[in-house]
Amino acid sequence: MSANPPIDAPPAHAPIVEFLVTGDEVLRGTISDTNSSITAAKLYPLGLSLRRTTVVGDRGEDIRRALLEISVRADFCIVSGGLGPTSDDLTAECAAQAAGVELRLDAVWLAKLRAGWAARRKEPMPLNNERQACVPEGSELLGNPDGSAPAFALRIDRCHFFFLPGVPREYHRIIDELVLPRIVVAIGRATGHTAMRSRTLQCIGITESALDEAVSAIRLAHTGVRFGFRTKFPENHLSLAALASSDAEAARLLAAAEADCRSALSSHVYGQDGVTFAQSIGELLGARGETLAVAESCTGGLLAQLCTEFAGASKFFVGGNITYSNDLKQRALGVPASALLQFGAVSPEVAMLMAQGARAASGATWSIAITGIAGPDGGTPDKPVGTVCICIDGPHTDATSNTSSDANTVAGATDASSPDRAGGGRARTHRFRGDRGQVRLQSAFAALQMLREALGVPPLPRPARTARASNS
Amino acid sequence: MSANPPIDAPPAHAPIVEFLVTGDEVLRGTISDTNSSITAAKLYPLGLSLRRTTVVGDRGEDIRRALLEISVRADFCIVSGGLGPTSDDLTAECAAQAAGVELRLDAVWLAKLRAGWAARRKEPMPLNNERQACVPEGSELLGNPDGSAPAFALRIDRCHFFFLPGVPREYHRIIDELVLPRIVVAIGRATGHTAMRSRTLQCIGITESALDEAVSAIRLAHTGVRFGFRTKFPENHLSLAALASSDAEAARLLAAAEADCRSALSSHVYGQDGVTFAQSIGELLGARGETLAVAESCTGGLLAQLCTEFAGASKFFVGGNITYSNDLKQRALGVPASALLQFGAVSPEVAMLMAQGARAASGATWSIAITGIAGPDGGTPDKPVGTVCICIDGPHTDATSNTSSDANTVAGATDASSPDRAGGGRARTHRFRGDRGQVRLQSAFAALQMLREALGVPPLPRPARTARASNS
Repeated sequence: MSANPPIDAPPAHAPIVEFLVTGDEVLRGTISDTNSSITAAKLYPLGLSLRRTTVVGDRGEDIRRALLEISVRADFCIVSGGLGPTSDDLTAECAAQAAGVELRLDAVWLAKLRAGWAARRKEPMPLNNERQACVPEGSELLGNPDGSAPAFALRIDRCHFFFLPGVPREYHRIIDELVLPRIVVAIGRATGHTAMRSRTLQCIGITESALDEAVSAIRLAHTGVRFGFRTKFPENHLSLAALASSDAEAARLLAAAEADCRSALSSHVYGQDGVTFAQSIGELLGARGETLAVAESCTGGLLAQLCTEFAGASKFFVGGNITYSNDLKQRALGVPASALLQFGAVSPEVAMLMAQGARAASGATWSIAITGIAGPDGGTPDKPVGTVCICIDGPHTDATSNTSSDANTVAGATDASSPDRAGGGRARTHRFRGDRGQVRLQSAFAALQMLREALGVPPLPRPARTARASNS
Repeated sequence: MSANPPIDAPPAHAPIVEFLVTGDEVLRGTISDTNSSITAAKLYPLGLSLRRTTVVGDRGEDIRRALLEISVRADFCIVSGGLGPTSDDLTAECAAQAAGVELRLDAVWLAKLRAGWAARRKEPMPLNNERQACVPEGSELLGNPDGSAPAFALRIDRCHFFFLPGVPREYHRIIDELVLPRIVVAIGRATGHTAMRSRTLQCIGITESALDEAVSAIRLAHTGVRFGFRTKFPENHLSLAALASSDAEAARLLAAAEADCRSALSSHVYGQDGVTFAQSIGELLGARGETLAVAESCTGGLLAQLCTEFAGASKFFVGGNITYSNDLKQRALGVPASALLQFGAVSPEVAMLMAQGARAASGATWSIAITGIAGPDGGTPDKPVGTVCICIDGPHTDATSNTSSDANTVAGATDASSPDRAGGGRARTHRFRGDRGQVRLQSAFAALQMLREALGVPPLPRPARTARASNS
C-alpha cells in the first residue's frame, strides 16, 4: 500500500473551479452579473472551466452554506461581492465563520484606508469603513489596486477560495493581477510551469467552429499554449495562454503560437486584447491621416455610434447623415427623386448616391452608406426583410454595384466566394438573417469590413466548405 | 398533539424559490444568461424572491446533483435549458433520474412535432427529434407555444420543479403563460387568491429609493397588490401585481392601485409594459402627425439609434446629422464659424444653432441638438467632462438658453427645481457624472425628456428633499 500523498499535493484530476456571487442586487436581477462570464473567459485559456456558478443573496446562512458546500467540492473558488463597508456586506465575516476562524484587523490596510480617506475629505473616516480592513485569520490579504475593499485568499477544507469585490472595474484587475497568477502557480506546482503570458486575437467573418478548425493543427504543434474561444456576436475571439517555467519562456512560446495563428487566420484577425472593430479601422484611418463620414438609413445611427463609443474617435470620424426618410435622402445627400423612384430606396444605386452625397457634404476622405430593410415590417418578395445595400466612397474607389444574397458575411456563416467580393466593387447588396437588432448590427459590421478592405486590408479568406457551413 | 398537515399543504414560511440554469455555453460565458434576471423580475411582484441561482454545465451528474440538492431546499425551482434535441440536452433525462422515474414518450406532443416538421420540410423527422416528446413519468407536460421543446412540471421531494427551454423568446412566454399562473395557484391555495393581473409602470427622472418612497403610502393602502422595483439605467420601473380570488377582482384591485401610483408619480411615468422611452415620445409625435430630426455631436448617433431601434420608427423619425467635427457643424448645419469661435462648440448658443440648422435642413417639425464633452479627454476647468448642451427647436419654441450644473436630471438624482426647468427654456447645459458611456446615455435621455416637455407633458415633479437626496 502506497503512502498517503502530502496534504498540499495538487489534485491529479483536472482542477475543479467554482464561482460564487453574493448580493441581493444580482440575485434579484437589478444588476446583472458580468463577472461570471469574464471569469469563465479568463479561466478558459488556462484549460480550466467553471464547474458551477452559484448566486446567493445577502443572507449570512446562505453565504456560509454555499462556502461550506463548495469547500468539499472544488479545488478553487472565486467569490465576487459583499466586501463593502455596509451592514449587508457579509462575505468576509461569513468566510471566517465558515473556516472556523476569527476576523483580524489588518493594520497595514487600515493605515492605507485612513490615508486615502484623509487625502479626499476633512472629517475622520467613519468607524464602519474599518470593517474593510478585516480579513479572516490565516487568509492572505491580496489587496485592491483600485479600491478600498481588499481581496483575500483563504483555504477552507480542500478548496482555495479567492474573495474579490464585485465592482467590475476593480474585479477585472484583481483577477488578472492577483488571482490568475496564483492559480497558475498552484496548478503549475506539479509541472513547474508557473509563469504565464496571454493574448486575445479578435476575429471577424469566421464562426466559432471554423475558428476552432482553422487553428486545430497549430494547437497540436504548440502544446505549451492553451487555446480558448469566445463569441461576441458577430465577432469571435481566440485566447492564447502560454504556461512555462519562466516569463521569458512563456513569452517565447506565446509569440510562436500567435505568429502561426495570425498566419492561419490572416485578415480574420482585426485586433487584439480589447480593441473594438470600429476602433481598429479608426486606427487605420488615423495612421493615414484620413477621415470618415457616414450616411445611414436602416441602421439609424448605429454605425456612427460604433465609430464614436471609444475615446479619440474625433481623430478620424467627422460625422454624417441619418437619412431615415426618402425626403431627407434627397435634401441632405442630394439623391435625385428619380433614382429613388427608379431603383427604390433600398438599392445599390441609391446606396452609391448616398455615399457620394455624404462624402461631398462632409469633405471626409471616405464615406459609408447603408440603406436596407431591418424589419420586422417593410419587406417585399423582391427585397425581403434583411436586404441591405452598402456602399463605400473614397479617393480611389471604382464604385461598382454587386449583389450578394449570402447572409452573415461578417459573422462568417456564409460562402464568401461570391464574385462580388472578388470583383472589388464597393456597392454590395446583403441579405442578413435575424431580428431587427441583428440585421442592424450585421449591416454596420459589414460596412466597416468593406471600408477595411478599401483601406487595403486583404479580403476575408474564403472559408473551407465544411459540413457545418453547408447546413447553415 | 395535532394531526400531521396533509402532504400538499402550502408551506407556512414564505416559499423558497430557486433558479437552475444548465448549459456549457452559459457556464463558459459564451452566451449570457438573461433568463435569471427576467425570472427574478417576474417573481418579485408576487412577493417571491429567488433564494439561490445555480449554473451547471451539460454534465449528467452535475445536473442530477443540483436537482437533488434543490429538491430538499426549495418549494419551487425553475430550470432553464437542456431540453433541445441534441445529445448534450440532458435535462429531461436527468430530471427523471433524479425523481427515480422513467421517461415516457408523449404521443400528443410527438404528433404535434411530426405535423410541424412535415409542414416545413420534405424528409421525415429525424429520430433524434423524438427525444423532445419525452418527459418524466408523473410530470405535467406544459407545452411550448413557440417551439418544439415542451416545458414540463415535476415534483421531486418537497420541491415543485418547472423545466423550460432556455431560448429567451420561448422562455418568456412560458414563464408568463404557463408557470407563473401555476405558482400563483399553488401559493394561493392557502389564501384562495389564485387569479393575477400585473402591470409595469416605466419611470424616468426618479431614483429607485425615491420611487419606493413615493408609493409607500399607496402600498399600505392596497394590500391586495404586490409592489416591485427594478432599475434599468437611467430608468426605474415599478411592477404591480394583484392577486385575488377571481380575475375580475384582480383587475379591479390592479386598476385602483395603478391609478393611485400614476397620480403620485405623475409625469415620471412615461409608459408601461415594455415600451422604450424614445418609443413613447415617438408615439406622442405620431399621434400629432409630427416629425423629428436630430443633430448630434458627443452622442455620435446614440440618440438616433434609440429613436430607430423599434419597428415603426419611420412614422416620426426622419433622420438628422452627426456633426462630430466643427467643420461639419458649419457645413451641414450652417453654424457660423464666428459662433464656434465666440462660444465654443460646447455651448447653449451652438446647440441652438445646430438645432435650428437640423430643423431647417430636414423640414422636420422638431429637432434636438446635443453638443458636449463625453470624455475621458477634452474637459477644461470651465467645461469639465460631462458638460453637455442640449437644445430643442420646434414650432412654438421660444428658444432661450439656461444653464444647470445639476447632474443626472433624468436619472432622478438631482434637484429639478432649478429655474432653468421652470423657465420653460429649450436650451440647457447639463453636467453629467459617469464614464463616457454613461454621459452619452444620460445626454440622449435628457434630450428626449426636453422634447417630451416641449410636446406638452408636464415637467418632472420636484423631488422631495430626503436625507438620501442631499447625500447624492
